Amino acid sequence: MAITGDQSFLKQINRIAMIRLVRAQTGLSRADIAKQTGLTKSTVSLLVQELIDEGWLCEETVQATGLVGRRPTPLALGTERLALLGVDVGCDFLNVLISTLKGEILYREMRPFTNTAIDARLDALMPMLKSALKLHPAYRVLGIGFGIHGILSADARQLIHAPNLGWTHLDIHALIAQKLSAARINLPFYPMNESNAGALAESVFAQNPAHHSLVYLSMGVGLGAGIVLKGRLYCGHDGYAGELGHTIMQIDGPQCGCGRRGCAETLISQSGLSRLLEEKEILTIAELQRRLQTGDIQTQEAVNTAGRMLGVLLQNIANSINPEEIVLGGPLVDLGDALVGPAMSTFSASQGRFDTRATIIRISQAGLDACALGAAARVFEEMLQPGSAG
Amino acid sequence: MAITGDQSFLKQINRIAMIRLVRAQTGLSRADIAKQTGLTKSTVSLLVQELIDEGWLCEETVQATGLVGRRPTPLALGTERLALLGVDVGCDFLNVLISTLKGEILYREMRPFTNTAIDARLDALMPMLKSALKLHPAYRVLGIGFGIHGILSADARQLIHAPNLGWTHLDIHALIAQKLSAARINLPFYPMNESNAGALAESVFAQNPAHHSLVYLSMGVGLGAGIVLKGRLYCGHDGYAGELGHTIMQIDGPQCGCGRRGCAETLISQSGLSRLLEEKEILTIAELQRRLQTGDIQTQEAVNTAGRMLGVLLQNIANSINPEEIVLGGPLVDLGDALVGPAMSTFSASQGRFDTRATIIRISQAGLDACALGAAARVFEEMLQPGSAG
Repeated sequence: MAITGDQSFLKQINRIAMIRLVRAQTGLSRADIAKQTGLTKSTVSLLVQELIDEGWLCEETVQATGLVGRRPTPLALGTERLALLGVDVGCDFLNVLISTLKGEILYREMRPFTNTAIDARLDALMPMLKSALKLHPAYRVLGIGFGIHGILSADARQLIHAPNLGWTHLDIHALIAQKLSAARINLPFYPMNESNAGALAESVFAQNPAHHSLVYLSMGVGLGAGIVLKGRLYCGHDGYAGELGHTIMQIDGPQCGCGRRGCAETLISQSGLSRLLEEKEILTIAELQRRLQTGDIQTQEAVNTAGRMLGVLLQNIANSINPEEIVLGGPLVDLGDALVGPAMSTFSASQGRFDTRATIIRISQAGLDACALGAAARVFEEMLQPGSAG
Repeated sequence: MAITGDQSFLKQINRIAMIRLVRAQTGLSRADIAKQTGLTKSTVSLLVQELIDEGWLCEETVQATGLVGRRPTPLALGTERLALLGVDVGCDFLNVLISTLKGEILYREMRPFTNTAIDARLDALMPMLKSALKLHPAYRVLGIGFGIHGILSADARQLIHAPNLGWTHLDIHALIAQKLSAARINLPFYPMNESNAGALAESVFAQNPAHHSLVYLSMGVGLGAGIVLKGRLYCGHDGYAGELGHTIMQIDGPQCGCGRRGCAETLISQSGLSRLLEEKEILTIAELQRRLQTGDIQTQEAVNTAGRMLGVLLQNIANSINPEEIVLGGPLVDLGDALVGPAMSTFSASQGRFDTRATIIRISQAGLDACALGAAARVFEEMLQPGSAG
């Protein structure tokens, strides 16, 4: 839209633009920034100094080059003053971590937790948050992201359904606000879907995040997905975008917890594998790994079947959303080649004759921290929006 | 990014912002625009007058209200000076139309054309374009959009594959440039995919287009789709986004022209219906309609089956892309309730237990003009980007 004369707004978007520039191109100098923004060198110097003082940016050591003259000082994101707090509200565990603006994990407390009551779960989290905040007094924490294992409304205020926790229609934003207030934790906070968090963990801290588009698959008991388009989380009109686990891959297939039949989640998940193996309880990843290692043929076949379905799903994602990358995440990834091998060969075999797509498929590096790290990343993203608290 | 002191750039984005504002809210006054943009009234008056003189905007008649005092003059998009040229390069026909900025069709020449050679097709189009331009001397035509029935590269310079025309890997941008130059037509032009054009036809001329997100399905001999997110066409990383016709809905299903098996296109299209009815040639819509009208049971069943598959596809779109609207377009829509009825009942029946989505599903109003009208819409979209020729 058109530009108003509001000086503080202009200053804020210039600050944000500078942080984004340095994030995208570590090592930029003040002169580079002036060139790329069209701002005067003195304005850039002033704002960069302010951002350094506050901890958003830092100066890197100038490399001795042997050339005559003063080298321009390279700038980078600051990692010593500002931090992000990320929470995985989990299904059978809780995870709280503190990350730098670069996604380096400074602190982590992960603990098993099986009580699914929302109150008990949030109550258990508050002392964990207080410990995290207390242990890092040198850092200013910018906010808290909460990764929730369920579908949230598009405005992230309502939890619509969390099948594995038995939650439906909770006013999740108000609940967290109340618990934080009672615990006297006065920080901005952002509830979000777990798979969306995983997607942010893979994009916000990546090289050149603003140009990144990816789909993150969170494969575990269920199957979730998060979509990032040009560096922004894409949630759709009602918050259902990326519910790829509930796209139907097999008409009249196995019954899904959502009420449909043949959803991708019934085929590519611990639940799906447990059904194929005719187990009443959902098998743990450890148990599935043990059976694979002992050469159990039925388990090998079931994992192979799930892997082939995953390959088809990867094709469908490439042909509908066509992201730059698809990132495989969640505990199921720990089944390794037994799952990923058939997925990749099915993906390759079902390329169309004229496809010239170059979709990158890779495994997430964040492991069990993906959700909490992505919730932390969300805080950084919020701070880089005009009108934010940052 | 940050704002430079470039006055002409600022003027241009202010002009674009004003056209967009009036497009979104017909009837705004100059005072309303000043309020919404933060610009001074004199700046607004100056720019609005310029936009009226050029034909982008016009003044609507003030309604007599009986109240004392001068009423502010309501503004609207101009429809008498500027026009958009849209072309459907077609499979078995050619269509050239001129549209106003509001999507009103001023002129149309549609003719059957069966020669699939790209040269012959473009050669036949040039005199049609010249006639269209000659017949409307009062209008300044802003550019030409070309809707092409095939997959284009993300930069729309290369045609990758047009199965129904037998084209692969054509330098489509250069080919059109050469033909236009030879025909002495000196206008900016924009090749685009046919289904993407259909999606723009439904969004650019709609109420409040900037907030619109929709998926347009083009169902005919094949099955294409176009995606518009927040008013912008979304083509994905390599131009394959919206290739929903080639998402796999039935593992090991019917062979698809693309080399895969069980693609949505093999199930929901004239080709799919012809296969179900064991016809060697692809049945025309007229023939399918005739058989439905005479109560042919096999045809009724085949169309019902395709309709149910369409319902599943609609679910999958709602759960992966979650647009505000899904618009059903293309000749297959002319089969009416026989197709759309089972699609809608399957869509409703396969809602998940906890879904609170409110996806609107409706039939396109543009009919056979959808592609050419959308190609015209694309020209308007280009003019509303900073740095455009407009």
